[in-house]
Amino acid sequence: MIKLYGIDVSGNTYKARLLMNILNIEYQQIPVDMQNQAHKSPFFLKLNPRGEIPVLVDEKTVIWDSQAILIYLARKYNAESWHPDNAIEMAKISQWLSVANNEIANTLAKARAIIKFSYSGCLEDHQEQAKGVLAMINQHLENQQTNSLNWLVGDKPSIADLACYPYIALSHEGGISLEGYTAIHKWIEQVQNLQGYINMPGLPFSARQQS
Amino acid sequence: MIKLYGIDVSGNTYKARLLMNILNIEYQQIPVDMQNQAHKSPFFLKLNPRGEIPVLVDEKTVIWDSQAILIYLARKYNAESWHPDNAIEMAKISQWLSVANNEIANTLAKARAIIKFSYSGCLEDHQEQAKGVLAMINQHLENQQTNSLNWLVGDKPSIADLACYPYIALSHEGGISLEGYTAIHKWIEQVQNLQGYINMPGLPFSARQQS
Repeated sequence: MIKLYGIDVSGNTYKARLLMNILNIEYQQIPVDMQNQAHKSPFFLKLNPRGEIPVLVDEKTVIWDSQAILIYLARKYNAESWHPDNAIEMAKISQWLSVANNEIANTLAKARAIIKFSYSGCLEDHQEQAKGVLAMINQHLENQQTNSLNWLVGDKPSIADLACYPYIALSHEGGISLEGYTAIHKWIEQVQNLQGYINMPGLPFSARQQS
Repeated sequence: MIKLYGIDVSGNTYKARLLMNILNIEYQQIPVDMQNQAHKSPFFLKLNPRGEIPVLVDEKTVIWDSQAILIYLARKYNAESWHPDNAIEMAKISQWLSVANNEIANTLAKARAIIKFSYSGCLEDHQEQAKGVLAMINQHLENQQTNSLNWLVGDKPSIADLACYPYIALSHEGGISLEGYTAIHKWIEQVQNLQGYINMPGLPFSARQQS
């Protein structure tokens, strides 16, 4: 069975859990004692030279980086609609994996880590930069609207949405308001209505669930 | 013909040029007047909401983010060896695209931008963090060695190498020495010996070229 090294309050760990739940993939989450720096231990650094969670272990395959884990899962488990084969869609999904990996990780996720886990850094700077990131994503989602739905790439959900979703939906934990970003609100609700959706601790869950 | 919006001294623009040269893809580079903020103009923001170079335009397809551009080119032009289809290799390549997009962009490339283009930021912090990134990559390349060659993923060059290469090879322009990173030196030489390799301004070129 797949082992996922991670913790419940990590948005990056949650991305992997979310896709595995949607795809009905069995897995076991193995907690990592971050407070005692288990992610910087020789054992863990051998799994992931970055010394970060999550890490996914599927028999002999070890994948680190939450975006890479989404790609691995979608391809290994034949979920082509979540990571299509064609050049344009794959590249456009990759654009948003980059945004998750850089802009979102370095603004929204950093602000949350400073407040919630006492990470060092300038909270106000990260909060201010986060507004620009949210405005960009909100505008993009507005432009994307087709048939009353808006997804980051094309007209269906993909791993791009799952990669960007957690730390946007957790904005309030970094002291950042989502007020006024109407397209983002709509998109959050769409993600929460996906078949197989699971929530994570601290994440506001207000979607009209499909019965 | 493909249009590549970018400038000669941008390592991210260079990545795209490098792969197009290797794959023998014709393109035209369109300069962007960064000093006059052309990359923040309404025209450019419509191409790329991030307001950054490079942007690749292939007929009606517009791709931003240098990592996404590499994926697009490799897939569109059937360069499967540069971005293999199978889940494990694709995910492992994606890990290093993330490193290019985050660790390398936020340490090595930032230090260079502060020195060379007067960007704001704490030079010493970026230089210090860059050492950790270089040590991680050097160790990984050492572990990767097979048949006297070391590539980031598997036993052949991929877009992972091209994504990480420019700002590592340009380290000195950020005041960061590559002394002691022997596996990185070897890897740089291998990249410079690739069929179709082109150099960029400021990048030390010392490979024993194949005749």
